[in-house]
Amino acid sequence: MERNWTPPLTRTNFRKIQPCTSPIEISLCSSPHALSLSLASTLHRSCKTSLSRFKTLIPFSLSTMAAANQPPGSAPGAPAAPAGNAATAAGREAFRQSVVNTLERRLFYIPSFKIYRGVAGLYDYGPPGCAVKSNVLAFWRQHFVLEEGMLEVDCPCVTPEVVLKASGHVDKFTDLMVKDEKTGTCYRADHLLKDFCKEKLEKEPNLAPEKVAELNHDIATLDDMSAEQLGAKIKEYGITAPETKNQLSDPYPFNLMFQTSIGPTGLSTGYMRPETAQGIFVNFKDLYYYNGNKLPFAAAQIGQAFRNEISPRQGLLRVREFTLAEIEHFVDPEDKSHPKFSDVADLKFLMFPREEQLTSKSSMTLRLGDAVANGTINNETLGYFIGRVYLFLTRLGIEKDRLRFRQHLPNEMAHYAADCWDAEIECSYGWIECVGIADRSAYDLKAHTEKSGVALVAAEKFAEPREVEKLVITPSKKDLGLAFKGNQKMVLEALEAMSEAEALEMKSKLESNGEAEFQVCTLNKTVTITNKMVSINKEKKEHQRVFTPSVIEPSFGIGRIIYCLYEHCFYTRAGKTEDEQLNVFGFPTLVAPIKCTVFPLVKNEQFDTVARDISKELTLSGISHIIDVTGTSIGKEVCTD
Amino acid sequence: MERNWTPPLTRTNFRKIQPCTSPIEISLCSSPHALSLSLASTLHRSCKTSLSRFKTLIPFSLSTMAAANQPPGSAPGAPAAPAGNAATAAGREAFRQSVVNTLERRLFYIPSFKIYRGVAGLYDYGPPGCAVKSNVLAFWRQHFVLEEGMLEVDCPCVTPEVVLKASGHVDKFTDLMVKDEKTGTCYRADHLLKDFCKEKLEKEPNLAPEKVAELNHDIATLDDMSAEQLGAKIKEYGITAPETKNQLSDPYPFNLMFQTSIGPTGLSTGYMRPETAQGIFVNFKDLYYYNGNKLPFAAAQIGQAFRNEISPRQGLLRVREFTLAEIEHFVDPEDKSHPKFSDVADLKFLMFPREEQLTSKSSMTLRLGDAVANGTINNETLGYFIGRVYLFLTRLGIEKDRLRFRQHLPNEMAHYAADCWDAEIECSYGWIECVGIADRSAYDLKAHTEKSGVALVAAEKFAEPREVEKLVITPSKKDLGLAFKGNQKMVLEALEAMSEAEALEMKSKLESNGEAEFQVCTLNKTVTITNKMVSINKEKKEHQRVFTPSVIEPSFGIGRIIYCLYEHCFYTRAGKTEDEQLNVFGFPTLVAPIKCTVFPLVKNEQFDTVARDISKELTLSGISHIIDVTGTSIGKEVCTD
Repeated sequence: MERNWTPPLTRTNFRKIQPCTSPIEISLCSSPHALSLSLASTLHRSCKTSLSRFKTLIPFSLSTMAAANQPPGSAPGAPAAPAGNAATAAGREAFRQSVVNTLERRLFYIPSFKIYRGVAGLYDYGPPGCAVKSNVLAFWRQHFVLEEGMLEVDCPCVTPEVVLKASGHVDKFTDLMVKDEKTGTCYRADHLLKDFCKEKLEKEPNLAPEKVAELNHDIATLDDMSAEQLGAKIKEYGITAPETKNQLSDPYPFNLMFQTSIGPTGLSTGYMRPETAQGIFVNFKDLYYYNGNKLPFAAAQIGQAFRNEISPRQGLLRVREFTLAEIEHFVDPEDKSHPKFSDVADLKFLMFPREEQLTSKSSMTLRLGDAVANGTINNETLGYFIGRVYLFLTRLGIEKDRLRFRQHLPNEMAHYAADCWDAEIECSYGWIECVGIADRSAYDLKAHTEKSGVALVAAEKFAEPREVEKLVITPSKKDLGLAFKGNQKMVLEALEAMSEAEALEMKSKLESNGEAEFQVCTLNKTVTITNKMVSINKEKKEHQRVFTPSVIEPSFGIGRIIYCLYEHCFYTRAGKTEDEQLNVFGFPTLVAPIKCTVFPLVKNEQFDTVARDISKELTLSGISHIIDVTGTSIGKEVCTD
Repeated sequence: MERNWTPPLTRTNFRKIQPCTSPIEISLCSSPHALSLSLASTLHRSCKTSLSRFKTLIPFSLSTMAAANQPPGSAPGAPAAPAGNAATAAGREAFRQSVVNTLERRLFYIPSFKIYRGVAGLYDYGPPGCAVKSNVLAFWRQHFVLEEGMLEVDCPCVTPEVVLKASGHVDKFTDLMVKDEKTGTCYRADHLLKDFCKEKLEKEPNLAPEKVAELNHDIATLDDMSAEQLGAKIKEYGITAPETKNQLSDPYPFNLMFQTSIGPTGLSTGYMRPETAQGIFVNFKDLYYYNGNKLPFAAAQIGQAFRNEISPRQGLLRVREFTLAEIEHFVDPEDKSHPKFSDVADLKFLMFPREEQLTSKSSMTLRLGDAVANGTINNETLGYFIGRVYLFLTRLGIEKDRLRFRQHLPNEMAHYAADCWDAEIECSYGWIECVGIADRSAYDLKAHTEKSGVALVAAEKFAEPREVEKLVITPSKKDLGLAFKGNQKMVLEALEAMSEAEALEMKSKLESNGEAEFQVCTLNKTVTITNKMVSINKEKKEHQRVFTPSVIEPSFGIGRIIYCLYEHCFYTRAGKTEDEQLNVFGFPTLVAPIKCTVFPLVKNEQFDTVARDISKELTLSGISHIIDVTGTSIGKEVCTD
């Protein structure tokens, strides 16, 4: 899906104060300390405090940065984007430059440690970026943790090796790397191959159709290639180091975790966590208990995660430290229904199921309820979270037609996963995975159970003990010992290991003859078993069912969501002169870093005092704002706009 | 200052639902979806939404966990603490055990990675602990960032070596360590010496007075001891490894930063930041620009910090990863007044100035305005922040008489610091430093200016250019080059390096004779300088003053504050039977993890629906709560309590 991109801008000028288009007033009662606001629906709830205290109306205006909500492209003064593929790519690049320049100049973010020439893949959030992030996280907490009654936890970033060994990260959290054989510079092997293929396709229009097909196939199967396959391709195409053209080493796996050492001895390896989820899994037992030993329940965590990328690119999208917000919803694998699924079943939005990807079709609008009913989405709980993620993102300000849910192809999914969907947002870099929603089955809890020896399981207590159709073989140690002495243990183990058929046969022989011949493999001989030596019974009462819960995991890359939001909220509008264009972020109020500006419409010193009192009251209500008592020009502008 | 400690409890039983002592009601209008609450002042502002919509009153009650605010010790049923020093120490220990047991059992916090037997000094916050932390941080943001208009930033934890080399952390952020020479187990050298002295003082009551004085002196001067001094003491006292009694190595410095490697080459050393402050300092230039190139302004940051402690003890007080909230307030070193100081000048609270500590007096209640006026506190801005910190902590629920501001002794302060005060909170571990408020002068910005080559300075523009009494020596490169050729540079440098007296003498000679003899040390000869070669002028107009700002830094250990808060909010009360005692946290509403419980006073299914609607509305208002529709007993309890 292509969109129009605004062309490069002749001048960038971010506007702090965005005049308001809807009638918003501030009024004051006679006491300057009692403030009332009537802000329609655009402002924070707590702003609507005490309407009854209204008294007099004075000439103040309150404008919100979020007032203008025009979509990109539809902004006045923005000419149509150039047509054609190449032109669109250039247009995307120029659009991104405008956004990024504005973001950096206004300190939404800053490359970290800039005065020391920075570190690739590390960024600071400056004041407005920090406010946006804080707003996004507050809404996440409200939308997921509070509304769904989740158990929030907060675990350390420093993680001992054993935890990440159990989770598989120590062995498998790697990218394939090649080194420039002379300078030692490192590259991601798949990046080099991808760049090579793309460049060849772009720059050599007369390639044979088979060659085009081969290159496209390479790009499509990059993620599946082994080190050997990647190495062979690099050799075959004669790919060299991009800067020096030197030979490259064979690809080898590089672990993406930042390694460190815990404590002073140097003997205890630790890593900076690559995800927050493991902190939740290892606490499953306590959290299950906290929840009254009841399923389902969800735990959630917001925190920093770390990935020592080989060569970070794509600005804020691929970084070495980032904020994750993760949910682990634990559920009985035999019942993945969700009591609130009907709340989201009627939502319709863009989905891109596996089948459509494999047949080269495009994403389509589906009703969530139907997608679950016809099995496109594996189960109700997974579907419920897809719906909740859709609501979360669109309420933040992500455009509906630039958001799709793409199902993982079989080769993208771990073998244990039941089903996975990514919320992908379209921005100038293409469709970007911002939220992953995966049914990971019981994999994680089982892995930690095995490694730690602590059973991370749940139990379903039956109201009435259940009669279970199950053969129970109970050998009598005493009688076996008397009969077989030193061989007792092997006979006993062989009895216990009998198949159901073998046991039933023995049972009937014992009942009719009082004894039965029995082949003991480990002794390599046949022994005679009597009635006394074993009892075989067909029924047993069970009081509960013990099982490892499945986990459904929505995992949010907060930085990626915020960057896409910046692009979706960005537009240009005409300035005062013809060749002046203004760069504007039209944020929804929910995420706007500054909710409003307070300034007198008329220059008068008395009003300045009132403006300051209003500012104080807004602060007490937790509403971020700017106060501007510098002059009359703003007032004029608002009056005439 | 000693306090009464409640004795060990016979049974611990934390109560989720704390019946309310003040009349709080929920009322509903006829539509079940329109809700109105009248919650007096105890609940969140946004709760007071729409009083005018009140309609009918139905039998619901809303109780807050924060309702009971009795101080520890005054709780009914708590016998007086045992008298005497030793008994008090035992009482403290028992009190702490009750608090810690309750906290751990209710998942306020959990030792991290417990199923793998944990890692010393790493803790998780469970659901209620997470909520408390989130409330404390939200109030911090409100009280400092919003109310003071600070610039919040958010920088990465991974920090390149150069930054922490400049700040001094790579070289000096160390503790002295000794190793068990056989097992390799590591200990903090000062801890071993301190434990030895304390144990000797406790267990040997008949020590000679000189010995007692020596041991006390050792404890008092521990922090000042060099590796050699500590090593000598350890040898002198024959201190051995606590568990094995093996010989110990000489003390040597161990850097407390977690080290890692950034990027794939292994050549770029990085550390997990030991504080958040450096991220602000390196961004000074951008932040100053963002603030319109005006001083003073403050930047703030909340985030994780890391210290690889040698042997963490004291539970939540000394950990390897923790949340810091730091403020860097940049100010003109020639004007440290604060416009809002009068807002806090009348506050009176416990201060412990340097003078009183050195003369073995105790802390005393002072008026903040007086402490600044008589020079006890170095300046108004420092005083303003001390006052704001006092308000922050007491509003959170820290008891006023267990909070003091202690001034650093000269040997505790860095040489560059102008003045430092710690907010210390008394808990069962003694007086604990929870907030440091330091005037660090221009040290940090100068260190980064020097290392990075980027001038981190501010400028005061003069309204009128100022005549400055200053000699300006302006050599003429051209004429020096013609006269001295290859030696030009050395002559030029020697001219520029003249003292004011030398320059004035040359000036008068040049004016009278047209030339002057001049000794150039680096050439080891005397040259003749003519009128053309240099101009020396006594006056110059200056348009601005360029200077490195001073920084005043309040730095908050959030985990420590929260732990002390837990102790201050903890008390016991009588249970239903005589030997039953209940453990209760009486949190102020501001920090209470659950703000209220909703339950019907009368068992009736209709009311359950209404309770659920109320719950929904509370969630939408962001008010965390518990809903309980299980039965009538709670209602009875509230009615009769």
